[in-house]
Amino acid sequence: MEIQFWREILEPYQLGVNELLVKFNHIIDECKNSGRYSPIESVEGRVKKISSILDKVQRKKLDSSEIDEKIEDIAGIRIICQFVEDIYDIVKMIHNRNDMIVKLEKDYVNDIKESGYRSFHMIVYYNVETLNGPKVIQVEIQIRTMGMDFWATIEHSLQYKYKYNIPPQIRERLSAASAAIIKLDNEMSSVHQEIRESQSSFRKQANI
Amino acid sequence: MEIQFWREILEPYQLGVNELLVKFNHIIDECKNSGRYSPIESVEGRVKKISSILDKVQRKKLDSSEIDEKIEDIAGIRIICQFVEDIYDIVKMIHNRNDMIVKLEKDYVNDIKESGYRSFHMIVYYNVETLNGPKVIQVEIQIRTMGMDFWATIEHSLQYKYKYNIPPQIRERLSAASAAIIKLDNEMSSVHQEIRESQSSFRKQANI
Amino acid sequence: MEIQFWREILEPYQLGVNELLVKFNHIIDECKNSGRYSPIESVEGRVKKISSILDKVQRKKLDSSEIDEKIEDIAGIRIICQFVEDIYDIVKMIHNRNDMIVKLEKDYVNDIKESGYRSFHMIVYYNVETLNGPKVIQVEIQIRTMGMDFWATIEHSLQYKYKYNIPPQIRERLSAASAAIIKLDNEMSSVHQEIRESQSSFRKQANI
Amino acid sequence: MEIQFWREILEPYQLGVNELLVKFNHIIDECKNSGRYSPIESVEGRVKKISSILDKVQRKKLDSSEIDEKIEDIAGIRIICQFVEDIYDIVKMIHNRNDMIVKLEKDYVNDIKESGYRSFHMIVYYNVETLNGPKVIQVEIQIRTMGMDFWATIEHSLQYKYKYNIPPQIRERLSAASAAIIKLDNEMSSVHQEIRESQSSFRKQANI
Repeated sequence: MEIQFWREILEPYQLGVNELLVKFNHIIDECKNSGRYSPIESVEGRVKKISSILDKVQRKKLDSSEIDEKIEDIAGIRIICQFVEDIYDIVKMIHNRNDMIVKLEKDYVNDIKESGYRSFHMIVYYNVETLNGPKVIQVEIQIRTMGMDFWATIEHSLQYKYKYNIPPQIRERLSAASAAIIKLDNEMSSVHQEIRESQSSFRKQANI
Repeated sequence: MEIQFWREILEPYQLGVNELLVKFNHIIDECKNSGRYSPIESVEGRVKKISSILDKVQRKKLDSSEIDEKIEDIAGIRIICQFVEDIYDIVKMIHNRNDMIVKLEKDYVNDIKESGYRSFHMIVYYNVETLNGPKVIQVEIQIRTMGMDFWATIEHSLQYKYKYNIPPQIRERLSAASAAIIKLDNEMSSVHQEIRESQSSFRKQANI
Repeated sequence: MEIQFWREILEPYQLGVNELLVKFNHIIDECKNSGRYSPIESVEGRVKKISSILDKVQRKKLDSSEIDEKIEDIAGIRIICQFVEDIYDIVKMIHNRNDMIVKLEKDYVNDIKESGYRSFHMIVYYNVETLNGPKVIQVEIQIRTMGMDFWATIEHSLQYKYKYNIPPQIRERLSAASAAIIKLDNEMSSVHQEIRESQSSFRKQANI
Repeated sequence: MEIQFWREILEPYQLGVNELLVKFNHIIDECKNSGRYSPIESVEGRVKKISSILDKVQRKKLDSSEIDEKIEDIAGIRIICQFVEDIYDIVKMIHNRNDMIVKLEKDYVNDIKESGYRSFHMIVYYNVETLNGPKVIQVEIQIRTMGMDFWATIEHSLQYKYKYNIPPQIRERLSAASAAIIKLDNEMSSVHQEIRESQSSFRKQANI
């Protein structure tokens, strides 16, 4: 499996990532321009590296014809938001769109991973136009708060540093950090709630 | 009709332009990566300025509810190519796509405007997802060679300079320039033809 | 003071911000490409809005000729990093550069603001080339961890929501959140330390 | 000479290209915002491909330590303008800047290459800040009209297609095209002159 083979495999995924970056970034603009609160703070996207795909191909003993179907995260979109509540608003928004179909979702926000990892994951089907006609690709969308992202960024750079063998004492520190972030996200959620209540009581007064 | 009204009108057009820029630019990459010749040299896009839309609204005596339907060039895409032949390849490519429907086309390449202006124009219907659900917008796609674009850029900056009253002696020079560019495009087309022929004779020999 | 006046005032600041974004982003690439750890996680930049400058002009009773000198944050760069230790590495790096001169610095990381705000601020002099010749501008550089940025983003959107009159119960929550983030940053710093130690002991072993 | 070696060689050139793109693009904005005519229509930049550098190293029998000094076009900037007159305005502008020093210039606009190639070339020294301190790099700046660029683009894709052995009949066509473009540029220059004259007579009348 050589470079030309990979370029052709990855082409439609890069297109999908680029299109989705435009679309989700536009939601931020659209909210700002209409004076609405944007549940999305920022968006990033990437196509999985060939070396990482090859790892998965070998680990899962896949045939090259199965790559498109069995590797669900070749195209990845990450959506960052301020409050835990925003995550579920974005999930609902994605379900309502006509340009993608949700294949499956995993709620690692409520069902925290053992490592301390939290995020909401969705796999969606998305249609792109290639020179050879239309093609349906899978895209993994990760939705998380800034706090969850902060933790995941650091955990990822440690995983990389220690080649996926983080020593126990550092793993403990990461757990403690994850707990601190959960506390922080809860603190923020209660701020969020109070804001909403104070706003709705303000609106009620204004209506009298 | 105030600023907030316009932001909401223009929002989906900006989204459409951004998406189409990603899509047409990707065709260039896709060709390069697969070693194919790209009929597209470069792509630009813009949303019509509010002042220009207002001019059209007044000139055509439109009601604000008719803007979406009657002004076909709020979203504009310009595709530049090397050879006249490429223009028609791109037109065919656009007809074959599943994400846009051609409403009408005007061939100012063969049917040159009196001013000397040449370009191929298409109006397509294109679907975008907004916070209020899906919306069909119209997009004007202009397709032209670098030579045609060169001429149009200069004519446009002269129109702007002279407030659409270009003096006769300059208008004559523009006509002469347009003629020179047609000669140039023809010269280039014949190069194009010879390239194709030499390539196909080369392939025939290679097949023996 | 009208729009043309402001455009000319702000022009060199926009140029400065654009140049510095290129320069600081390049440091990230340079580290990655040489296998070094990048103390910079991401960079953002902005030119202050005219309305905010006008507020400051009125509050400080400035003459329009004093704007360049007295308003130090017209050009703003924000550098985000993972660990508190990175902040001071970046500060040192900025002092060592030949293309900017540090005018002053404020360490709100050790000397936390009453509101809970933490960040390291620097004002630097930076030279840009304009059509009218070279011009020295001031740029405010804010350096903070992802946690500090997380807090500041939320505090800022609350300040905006409550028009700089955050109610006491929300202010308390923000303080609690700031404390939680300090705990988190400390947790992360100790991870950082352990990593360094484990690395240097690893290197020592490897050298034997 | 392996990949890591090249990354370190090319790093400062990529930085230089990125900075200069920001700087020259800003001139366009600055002119637009102050209502002045911009002699620059558009700007592009690139770092020479490693394979092309290697070709040159072998052809010129260079030692790897001589690369920085002897290969003057590792960093390349291309500036496109509308009129031949603009080229010389841009050359003057570059001479006046304090952030680059002109090493040499070649006027292939007046002194057309045998192939028909026309452009104004400058080699400038430019200073960048790297993690290892400041470094002076050389940058090749090519300045040309849209017409010259049009021709060069097509010639380049033909050179590539025919592996630098363009057949005589196509070479002839290219010469004819070059002649057509010179005629065109002259036509445009005379438009330019008439515009200037009509403007200055207009101003004189307005002053009475």
